[in-house]
Amino acid sequence: MISKNRLKHIQSLHLKKFRLEHQCFIAEGVKVVNEFIGSAAYKPLEVFATVPYLNAHHKQLEENNIPFTEVSEDELKKISLQSTPNQVLAICPMVHQKLDAVKLHTHLNLFLDDIKDPGNLGTIIRIADWFGIPQVICSPTCAELYNIKTIQATMGAMLRVPVIYENFGAVLKTAPDVTIYGAVMEGINVYKTRIENGILVIGNEANGISDDVLSHVNRRITIPPAGNNGSESLNAAVATAILCNEHARLHVV
Amino acid sequence: MISKNRLKHIQSLHLKKFRLEHQCFIAEGVKVVNEFIGSAAYKPLEVFATVPYLNAHHKQLEENNIPFTEVSEDELKKISLQSTPNQVLAICPMVHQKLDAVKLHTHLNLFLDDIKDPGNLGTIIRIADWFGIPQVICSPTCAELYNIKTIQATMGAMLRVPVIYENFGAVLKTAPDVTIYGAVMEGINVYKTRIENGILVIGNEANGISDDVLSHVNRRITIPPAGNNGSESLNAAVATAILCNEHARLHVV
Repeated sequence: MISKNRLKHIQSLHLKKFRLEHQCFIAEGVKVVNEFIGSAAYKPLEVFATVPYLNAHHKQLEENNIPFTEVSEDELKKISLQSTPNQVLAICPMVHQKLDAVKLHTHLNLFLDDIKDPGNLGTIIRIADWFGIPQVICSPTCAELYNIKTIQATMGAMLRVPVIYENFGAVLKTAPDVTIYGAVMEGINVYKTRIENGILVIGNEANGISDDVLSHVNRRITIPPAGNNGSESLNAAVATAILCNEHARLHVV
Repeated sequence: MISKNRLKHIQSLHLKKFRLEHQCFIAEGVKVVNEFIGSAAYKPLEVFATVPYLNAHHKQLEENNIPFTEVSEDELKKISLQSTPNQVLAICPMVHQKLDAVKLHTHLNLFLDDIKDPGNLGTIIRIADWFGIPQVICSPTCAELYNIKTIQATMGAMLRVPVIYENFGAVLKTAPDVTIYGAVMEGINVYKTRIENGILVIGNEANGISDDVLSHVNRRITIPPAGNNGSESLNAAVATAILCNEHARLHVV
């Protein structure tokens, strides 16, 4: 059973404003919550779960000293952000990651310039995880990492890949001589060049890379369309995957 | 103004059952509907739009002999499948595409084995369009092409790429000697092989390729993770994009 006050508190976390105020957020579903339980930084402050979940996982919660409350399906529905809640909801602490300036030189890093769709952001973090990208830097106007749609789309990758919100100018200051690659519509054919270490900039879904950031890009890269259909663009996450793959294929053998 | 009967009819198209019965579906939003208006096969049977849309586009509708009805924002909300409708809704005829057996040999084709998420299906069709894939074959258990989420995710690509629903067995019969590539977790490193013409099979989001289809795959392909993080998988659409890119990079120079 959840008290009225707790209910109100949890529901308030459905809104970004209150997530920021309380510095915590909601993660949901068996697979996702179980990954969070095993995480050092994001370890849940509290878990609300139905009987089937608790029967299977109460030991894990006890071993990790995570307080939990049994709830009915109806109660879970009231606190959930999902249309079909899946057994468990966790409240987790926000983590503020710091930019690693050294890795800007030793790895390929991502800078997301105004990626607005939380599903895209989450998918990109998952891609970064797969390709060993050490950090994803988001412009302050990007979608929120702690939006439930972002969290679900990362499939746990946000526990492994630091996500930093920072202006491009501030990033440049820490690494003024790093190579800046940018995904654009008219640039060098990606198959005829090499994406080495540095920063790869991915622009907004509708408008691409902003003029200010673009002025700092010194390697403009294009994925050439293979079709002649009049296809206009690739989804931002898909373009990210292809460019990260082009970087990875140089090194993974 | 829409009559009560018309309203009921349009709302019935929110459900797959009635889309099938009436052999038509809903497309929405300025960009998407404008692409449909220019299409031969999918030309809207009827358009419902607010004043701003009609002011800008009524000529296009008249030139294409498409009947249209002016609706208020409130009326649009009642017939729309979107939480924030965008000016216009079109009712379009379903199109039944046929498998092109010749292209199974002359191009790389996609077979989707039980892709359940309409967003993934739409994104994959958009990827196919970009990479000049001539047809996307869906197992009958895949998400529906005419689901509004699929349509919106294709961003118009469904007008250019034929999507065929067909059993894998029937496809094989028309081209028994074609090379079948399959995206799997443990196969040949994609960077050490070549994806040539044939059929590339992409499996279900959670379970991968079904046993039956897998038994016909003669080239099992894996995208190796470049990270050492414990990353488990790539999104199905992302994996499709990377493999189509590996095929395209052999030919686009």
